[in-house]
Amino acid sequence: MAKRKICVVITARPSYSRIKTALEAINKHPDLELQLVVAASALLDRYGSAVNYMVKDGFEISAKVFNILEGENLTAAAKTTGIGILELSTVFDNLAPDIVVTVADRFETMATAIAASYMNIPLAHIQGGEVTGNIDEKVRHSITKLADYHFVASNGAYERVVKLGENPEFVFNTGCPSIDLAAGVKENPRLDFEPYQKYGGVGAAPDLKNGYWVVMQHPVTTEVSLSRKQIEETLHAMYEIKEPVLMFWPNVDAGADGTSTGIRSFRETHKLDHFHFFKNMEPLDFLRVLCNSKGLIGNSSVGIRECAFLGVPVVNIGSRQNKRDRGNNVIDVGYSKDEILHAIKAHTRHKPSTSHIYGGGDAGKQIAKLLSTLPLVFHKTITF
Amino acid sequence: MAKRKICVVITARPSYSRIKTALEAINKHPDLELQLVVAASALLDRYGSAVNYMVKDGFEISAKVFNILEGENLTAAAKTTGIGILELSTVFDNLAPDIVVTVADRFETMATAIAASYMNIPLAHIQGGEVTGNIDEKVRHSITKLADYHFVASNGAYERVVKLGENPEFVFNTGCPSIDLAAGVKENPRLDFEPYQKYGGVGAAPDLKNGYWVVMQHPVTTEVSLSRKQIEETLHAMYEIKEPVLMFWPNVDAGADGTSTGIRSFRETHKLDHFHFFKNMEPLDFLRVLCNSKGLIGNSSVGIRECAFLGVPVVNIGSRQNKRDRGNNVIDVGYSKDEILHAIKAHTRHKPSTSHIYGGGDAGKQIAKLLSTLPLVFHKTITF
Amino acid sequence: MAKRKICVVITARPSYSRIKTALEAINKHPDLELQLVVAASALLDRYGSAVNYMVKDGFEISAKVFNILEGENLTAAAKTTGIGILELSTVFDNLAPDIVVTVADRFETMATAIAASYMNIPLAHIQGGEVTGNIDEKVRHSITKLADYHFVASNGAYERVVKLGENPEFVFNTGCPSIDLAAGVKENPRLDFEPYQKYGGVGAAPDLKNGYWVVMQHPVTTEVSLSRKQIEETLHAMYEIKEPVLMFWPNVDAGADGTSTGIRSFRETHKLDHFHFFKNMEPLDFLRVLCNSKGLIGNSSVGIRECAFLGVPVVNIGSRQNKRDRGNNVIDVGYSKDEILHAIKAHTRHKPSTSHIYGGGDAGKQIAKLLSTLPLVFHKTITF
Amino acid sequence: MAKRKICVVITARPSYSRIKTALEAINKHPDLELQLVVAASALLDRYGSAVNYMVKDGFEISAKVFNILEGENLTAAAKTTGIGILELSTVFDNLAPDIVVTVADRFETMATAIAASYMNIPLAHIQGGEVTGNIDEKVRHSITKLADYHFVASNGAYERVVKLGENPEFVFNTGCPSIDLAAGVKENPRLDFEPYQKYGGVGAAPDLKNGYWVVMQHPVTTEVSLSRKQIEETLHAMYEIKEPVLMFWPNVDAGADGTSTGIRSFRETHKLDHFHFFKNMEPLDFLRVLCNSKGLIGNSSVGIRECAFLGVPVVNIGSRQNKRDRGNNVIDVGYSKDEILHAIKAHTRHKPSTSHIYGGGDAGKQIAKLLSTLPLVFHKTITF
Repeated sequence: MAKRKICVVITARPSYSRIKTALEAINKHPDLELQLVVAASALLDRYGSAVNYMVKDGFEISAKVFNILEGENLTAAAKTTGIGILELSTVFDNLAPDIVVTVADRFETMATAIAASYMNIPLAHIQGGEVTGNIDEKVRHSITKLADYHFVASNGAYERVVKLGENPEFVFNTGCPSIDLAAGVKENPRLDFEPYQKYGGVGAAPDLKNGYWVVMQHPVTTEVSLSRKQIEETLHAMYEIKEPVLMFWPNVDAGADGTSTGIRSFRETHKLDHFHFFKNMEPLDFLRVLCNSKGLIGNSSVGIRECAFLGVPVVNIGSRQNKRDRGNNVIDVGYSKDEILHAIKAHTRHKPSTSHIYGGGDAGKQIAKLLSTLPLVFHKTITF
Repeated sequence: MAKRKICVVITARPSYSRIKTALEAINKHPDLELQLVVAASALLDRYGSAVNYMVKDGFEISAKVFNILEGENLTAAAKTTGIGILELSTVFDNLAPDIVVTVADRFETMATAIAASYMNIPLAHIQGGEVTGNIDEKVRHSITKLADYHFVASNGAYERVVKLGENPEFVFNTGCPSIDLAAGVKENPRLDFEPYQKYGGVGAAPDLKNGYWVVMQHPVTTEVSLSRKQIEETLHAMYEIKEPVLMFWPNVDAGADGTSTGIRSFRETHKLDHFHFFKNMEPLDFLRVLCNSKGLIGNSSVGIRECAFLGVPVVNIGSRQNKRDRGNNVIDVGYSKDEILHAIKAHTRHKPSTSHIYGGGDAGKQIAKLLSTLPLVFHKTITF
Repeated sequence: MAKRKICVVITARPSYSRIKTALEAINKHPDLELQLVVAASALLDRYGSAVNYMVKDGFEISAKVFNILEGENLTAAAKTTGIGILELSTVFDNLAPDIVVTVADRFETMATAIAASYMNIPLAHIQGGEVTGNIDEKVRHSITKLADYHFVASNGAYERVVKLGENPEFVFNTGCPSIDLAAGVKENPRLDFEPYQKYGGVGAAPDLKNGYWVVMQHPVTTEVSLSRKQIEETLHAMYEIKEPVLMFWPNVDAGADGTSTGIRSFRETHKLDHFHFFKNMEPLDFLRVLCNSKGLIGNSSVGIRECAFLGVPVVNIGSRQNKRDRGNNVIDVGYSKDEILHAIKAHTRHKPSTSHIYGGGDAGKQIAKLLSTLPLVFHKTITF
Repeated sequence: MAKRKICVVITARPSYSRIKTALEAINKHPDLELQLVVAASALLDRYGSAVNYMVKDGFEISAKVFNILEGENLTAAAKTTGIGILELSTVFDNLAPDIVVTVADRFETMATAIAASYMNIPLAHIQGGEVTGNIDEKVRHSITKLADYHFVASNGAYERVVKLGENPEFVFNTGCPSIDLAAGVKENPRLDFEPYQKYGGVGAAPDLKNGYWVVMQHPVTTEVSLSRKQIEETLHAMYEIKEPVLMFWPNVDAGADGTSTGIRSFRETHKLDHFHFFKNMEPLDFLRVLCNSKGLIGNSSVGIRECAFLGVPVVNIGSRQNKRDRGNNVIDVGYSKDEILHAIKAHTRHKPSTSHIYGGGDAGKQIAKLLSTLPLVFHKTITF
């Protein structure tokens, strides 16, 4: 019997780390053939070229889709999605997949969902049902209504997807594949590489052996003009803290320019003896860095998910992770130097307990198994 | 105070007739400025150039968007949507509307929804919440999850949109604006024009004074290859019935070629003394034609909505109106000459009672009023 | 040694017949691998689906590119070219050809030229250097300046391309491959098939055994609004002539609607007992039809080229073939019923002599040989 | 009488400085209305946001076109052109210009040329006829064959455009408008502003009063993979020279990443006490900086044009300006630290004489006058 062709479209660095164990499980499954399509910022140097890690991890790339329209304003985001549809429909025509898999909720993932569902290709959606309260949430639920299969990451998400009128037969709480990676790291958390040497980056090279902080803050798309000011509050806080800081550049998004410009400008105007800046890290290495840190500062979803599982303290800034289910490792603060500093002092003194709210470590395998056995359907109707 | 700019995007002939009274009400409202954007098949001669009727009805066109990619296959439908996003985002940039209105559920209306919501423009959706069981339904609910305001046409639709997690404060059962038109016709149903003379078309010119049938059948997108065979069953049935038939060409859709080809081929191979073929009619005239007919045969949503209000018997063929709420004017049959003939004989002998399930005749005015008063929002979260 | 990959992009029915023997010669050449890309109107049913003939002729299609934006106005023509570039660059990325071949001068062939030359793929242009005095001529010479190799069809064309500053080492007068086909027909011109039966079409079926006329008239893009009137003059002339007429539908072009609408309307308003309408014919069959006709009426380049070689009388209408070199088989007239009628009477009484101005019948083989041996270059500079 | 609407499309920083006096002259001309369209890299922060200078200079922007597809590979360059056509054709539809003006020869200017000529809008081309031997040259001559009017910058260019078969009635040697700016600076060359303070930038702030060098080196598109190595030779040379260096970031182009990455990496690995890096400068300020420098190093066309007029020594590196007419202020070298160093020492000791080969300072006014009086045509044929 011919293998089922499973086409997974990755459009950004964080989506790759989130989905990596599922890709591995698909690749290994005897009844599945992986078609990996890399698109959007996952191809671009200035967003960390996730594609290079994929190749290094041994994945074969079936197609590359360049669709990011420069401009980093909201119109460009819409047009990027339009170009994505034009390009991906050609890719799907060529690859003729049995199932297309789209990951999470970035604006440009809508292009994958539309191309597949309009072409009558069964569509699987990973990480539906979550609540964040911004354009990502609109996109996420909108994709849910186009998708035929739903692999969600928590009980709350499961319930929401079912409430959205999806047939429970096609909704599965697999947990988040990103937790699969964290499970390996948790067993053996040693920082077994030298970050500066392995990943380059720019800035000072503070000594990490007495502890360090990790900072990862993305612009929030509906507050474009504020993103520069927001990052500056964080930078000022970490500047005062005088302990080593490992900082990551933001993703592409409307507003990224504000965040990036804020960082660049701060670097020119301040003497940053205890900051180092990275573009990107391999997922496992990043988890190891987190696991050994004093805490994560910013608004990355890693703080909500992997850090819950690993028990890393998180100071979560602003509205980006607004309503996501969270463990007791997280404290929420506003865009304010003082709030950030206060939370760092008060909240990160003790290592928090760990939690399985986003899965137990076998999400990738569950997803591959489901993809190999689910009936191929692209026709559905609402349940109410 | 500056008027609110309301940008309505019309992509097809039937969407125009459905929304016309809302356009008029927006145009007349002292606090609103109408920005009418005409796109896709509404611009094209071979789909009836709805744009010409808009101009004739006195509407000013703010922008025209050509985005139909020829091919009439599923890939072309996806690409048409991609091009639509590219073009509409430019249009919205230029027009800077306060609210964008998208109508119903055609595949290409998704382009309007994405461009507006990605650009942080409040999005109103007309006719969400209905159930049809095909790609249109996926699109419809997917748009609901992007839209900020919902103007639905029936109680069932209202309940479904609220169940989908939309804030009831922003969901309104206005009824369907198409019923507003029907209300005028119902009061004065006389056929006050000569169809052949006014609308041309091709074929014989059977005498209409002893009654006639109206046929309108669209291809069903997920059954592309079958659309030719499906229309042939209908044609054979109407051929046998030997009473005057006024037949309308189908909309553009993947599969339209099957339907159109089927009709053209039937014309060449049969002597059709009692058939006349129209491309299009002005909405009011079309309702008058329906109101005076012996019944409507096919799968148009007009049979479910306007004909319920007008009390016109309908033989509804196939799955296209699958789960829409319907009055007792409708009988459902399969794609089968015999079933169609039988239903015509059994069901259309008596004029059915009328029903208000799709509104009472003031939907356009309600919509305009809501557009003038609703708070401008583009930020939402699911209610559960 | 690996075969050279030769990617030929066909965008329209007439381009296919023009290039067919070159495709065959490439296919048969031991050092070449043909990559046939079919795009634009060559894929569309209403322009004769040239792609079906290619498949029937045994060619394998490497990629299909749908890029015609409906609208048939000048803006749509520009956008069709833009979409063509987006799509073809993906195709060239996937196919990685050694040489791309673009044919003639239709507006959308520019997309092939731009995608290939911007991607540093050596570009061969077939049929440069001709003079026609419309947008096609601008496009043709503009492509010449992007192309690296030039396979021209006449001495005049050769001289013009060299005068345009192209290196004579890369300019070759191969003759036109369309003449290769005509050579076979000339040897054995018998009409060995029944046109109505084989090609269907619509209209009357006049008896052909006492002679018939062939009509093929395309819209002229810079005179959009006039195209309907222009075709009507021809139709009126052929209506009066009362001898069998085999008429072909026009190509897609801005203005095609005018021509097609003119024909359709004429059919509805006139009793056309001696007209039959075809969409398309296989090239060889079409040449046979021409060879046995009393003459060709219209503005097709077939009249200038193949008919010169075959010795078929041609009444060439209007400016479309304006300045192309022509044999004594052609008489030029304006868009006027009377001029057309007069020319038919005066000019077509005697069979004209034949001429080799567009090649001697081995163009396809010459082109394949050159493609297999020319150095691969994409870097050039003007010669003056 | 209605003013003629002149639509000028600017796609890059250098094109703006080149054309600025023509824009001013159009703006001031009583019979002309300027429609300024800003597109591509001219809109983007990381290429110096030329648009900000336009606004500051008092120009009103009629439309902005975001069309740069990220990727900075050759496929992205092709696609950027495709998107440009899609967007510009909409812009031209809206603005309905009488004449469109396209500047020079960047790959994406082809989009302007195609959109205008396909839409039957008379097209003027500034700076045709020059010889550079790379993809830019192909593009430049290809645009010449689409353009209806030619405003060239030198006698050599005039002759070449006429030889290309253009009607001499529509070819004009106006000189280059960039020289108009230089004329003002030459009269009063004082460096009347403080560069670091006015333009920011990054790096050291070497004292400029004892002289400094200006470096501006762009990637050469057909040597993508080499661009990093090429810039490194220049950086090493200027590093050794130990005199103040004012360096400018490169334009967007396939390969820009190589150049930019080379610069960034060099900055991280070398202690650059005598380098300062600018993104951009207003044209007049830049000319003043050049005029007071010891010389220009790199491959910018400014070295060939403005510096000839100003008498600034230029070390021109590599093939980018290959065959452009040049004065005795230029010495050509390869991509080699040693050649660069040697040329700096040997060639820049004495200030060279000045030359008018690229015009005398009134090009802008000549162009505006021609645009106001030339007949509106979009129909042409080759002259031979």
